[in-house]
Amino acid sequence: MKTALSALGHRTAPPAISWLMKTALSRPKLISLAAGFTDNATLPVEISRQLLNDLLRSPKTGRPALQYGTTAGESDLRQLTATHLQKLDGGHDRAHSPERVIITGGSQQFLYMALEALCDEGDIVLVEDPTYFVFLSILQSRGIRARGVKLERDGLDLAHLEAVLERLKKSGELHRVKALYLVTYFQNPTGATTTLAKKRAALKLLKKYERTAGHPIYLIEDAAYRELRFDHGADVPTALTLSGAKDRVIYAGTYSKPFATGVRVGFGILPEPVYTAVLRIKGNHDFGTANLLQHLLIRALATGSYDRHVAKIRKNYAHKAAVMKRALAENFPASVEIWESGGGLYFWARLPKGISAGVKSKVFQTALKSDVLYVPGELCYAEDSWRRKPASEMRISFGNASEADIREGIQRLGAVLKQFVR
Amino acid sequence: MKTALSALGHRTAPPAISWLMKTALSRPKLISLAAGFTDNATLPVEISRQLLNDLLRSPKTGRPALQYGTTAGESDLRQLTATHLQKLDGGHDRAHSPERVIITGGSQQFLYMALEALCDEGDIVLVEDPTYFVFLSILQSRGIRARGVKLERDGLDLAHLEAVLERLKKSGELHRVKALYLVTYFQNPTGATTTLAKKRAALKLLKKYERTAGHPIYLIEDAAYRELRFDHGADVPTALTLSGAKDRVIYAGTYSKPFATGVRVGFGILPEPVYTAVLRIKGNHDFGTANLLQHLLIRALATGSYDRHVAKIRKNYAHKAAVMKRALAENFPASVEIWESGGGLYFWARLPKGISAGVKSKVFQTALKSDVLYVPGELCYAEDSWRRKPASEMRISFGNASEADIREGIQRLGAVLKQFVR
Repeated sequence: MKTALSALGHRTAPPAISWLMKTALSRPKLISLAAGFTDNATLPVEISRQLLNDLLRSPKTGRPALQYGTTAGESDLRQLTATHLQKLDGGHDRAHSPERVIITGGSQQFLYMALEALCDEGDIVLVEDPTYFVFLSILQSRGIRARGVKLERDGLDLAHLEAVLERLKKSGELHRVKALYLVTYFQNPTGATTTLAKKRAALKLLKKYERTAGHPIYLIEDAAYRELRFDHGADVPTALTLSGAKDRVIYAGTYSKPFATGVRVGFGILPEPVYTAVLRIKGNHDFGTANLLQHLLIRALATGSYDRHVAKIRKNYAHKAAVMKRALAENFPASVEIWESGGGLYFWARLPKGISAGVKSKVFQTALKSDVLYVPGELCYAEDSWRRKPASEMRISFGNASEADIREGIQRLGAVLKQFVR
Repeated sequence: MKTALSALGHRTAPPAISWLMKTALSRPKLISLAAGFTDNATLPVEISRQLLNDLLRSPKTGRPALQYGTTAGESDLRQLTATHLQKLDGGHDRAHSPERVIITGGSQQFLYMALEALCDEGDIVLVEDPTYFVFLSILQSRGIRARGVKLERDGLDLAHLEAVLERLKKSGELHRVKALYLVTYFQNPTGATTTLAKKRAALKLLKKYERTAGHPIYLIEDAAYRELRFDHGADVPTALTLSGAKDRVIYAGTYSKPFATGVRVGFGILPEPVYTAVLRIKGNHDFGTANLLQHLLIRALATGSYDRHVAKIRKNYAHKAAVMKRALAENFPASVEIWESGGGLYFWARLPKGISAGVKSKVFQTALKSDVLYVPGELCYAEDSWRRKPASEMRISFGNASEADIREGIQRLGAVLKQFVR
């Protein structure tokens, strides 16, 4: 007898890094520089206790937090979110209306629903090469094809984006292209941040090919790491500030990473008709994100606790990133190219050409034997027959490892690399 | 230019009752007996405050609640869930292993993912006639066909289930049938509870037709209202206690309704290979339900607060149901058949044949003018060309209305009915 699973049920693969996680658990002395966890020590335990205490001190404020809300999310949180983003974007209010905000169970749930609303099986989404691997999992699961566009340290390789669109036009597949997905701030996995000029140029290029596509091609901007900035540089405005954004930019944001990953609340900002479609889909998923979490965040944002907490963790991540930077300089062979990041949780290391850091590589296996784990870069590349999947890169996280573990982990990894890299 | 929406994005309809909700908001004096909200006055505000205070008092217990967890859910909660269900099922442990439990964002999210794992577009799910309308929305959205099976006051009409299966066999569509969906306790919308004998017989019937189907046909048991029992009758064991359940029963449960709908945590218990498929899908949706909510429930369950709270709200619902029962007896014409419920949030009223209570009916419009709202029963019937959709029924909720509003609302509704019903 066959199984009763759907095509999606059959297709959905185990998460790329699930076995990395299992491996980590099976080696108690292992130092993991792989996990994308946020820093454990700076989680807002006392802040949350106080805010929840205030919230639940009276039935008047407590009951709405413990009752059903609306599918789009609490109106106060949608308003605070729009205001918060406007502030981050320097007062710009081109496309930041609360009516276009939907509150979701993390930005991950939002990305899932946006793809449901936009893509049929066989449709195409353009992604950065490399990109966020759970986004690739969604594509794989839903039978959506990905085409990779080269990523540079300041964002997409625009010439390559144009070449890919041109090639899709020639192959008659442009009508299957629904979106370009960019992780624009301190990207997972590379740490790269996309300049506003590149966002503008990308939006313009998409627009140019829409006529042939016969429908809008959306720019999905995933800004999950935006607030984890620590480089004292100016914040780059979002694509929402661009001309035409209101009709073409889908913005995914989150409070999980800057505040607490256990308080899983994210949000999306969308143009019609995608907004309405996603709202209805959300109605079927769960008719609204848990109100208790939303009310906690409303209080955190409204009282300033949120901003104070973000300022604190930025300092902490800056320090941990500096520790990693120093350790890399001391321990890694000079021929390994390091992409430092001015925010987020990751550094990106590129070994000399021809040396694999992939899952089955000697480098990875030796690292494992030396009790240090990283994410092989190859896991962050889409399946795309138009290019060979690069395998000589590694994502190294300073997010949740302690300072001592960062030093020791990088030392171990450096020693491994010296065996394979001249 | 066309839209870029997917087939699903195009298809997904507005929620059946969204305009009911809007209507309610536009008439400030309206008494709503429509909403499926739980009772506001008994929400566990103080209990939650204390539990969260304890949880967040130290970093040791607080940090795990504010950090990412695992996709399947916190192992303590999975264990407590299995134990809790075993207890409800009289110690039975046939299919209650924590390894088969997945924690989700309410049971709604679980149902969504189970359907993703099982059904392709064009597949068929058998449902009760009538059934939970948000489940019907998921089917509609995903292009899954529904076939209705008559519902009696003690559960499915088994002869009709067999007739439907037989007809599907004859039409050569049995291979598209993936599941039978039952809301087994104090059903939404009818309040009916399915006997164990009927669950057993249904499971047996499904098994009988599996050979022709060529794959398993699952019994999805949605027990969302199970713990809202107030009739002092014995709890009916779940289908999980039946022989063969371990391979064929998918159980959906929730802590939201018995504890707090704002703490949206539900769960599923599944057989392989559906369990693994749903787990992977959950990884793509949100890689795990917010840990803060899970840790709150772990404490509520482990300290006994949960059980004490459930005992309290049962008394409250019993009282409100009694108020509604008395008001119905005093105000409704005798020719209206009332299905009282021994639990849950709803009574079901059936008008004499030929009198419509549907959305466009005089009864509904007159009720609206009299400032009282109910859910027209027709919204709870699947689109099914094999029968005419019944329209002479109404779902009346005592869940969130106050005692005074229940009395006044039923009085108004009774006065309306007397205009149309002899």
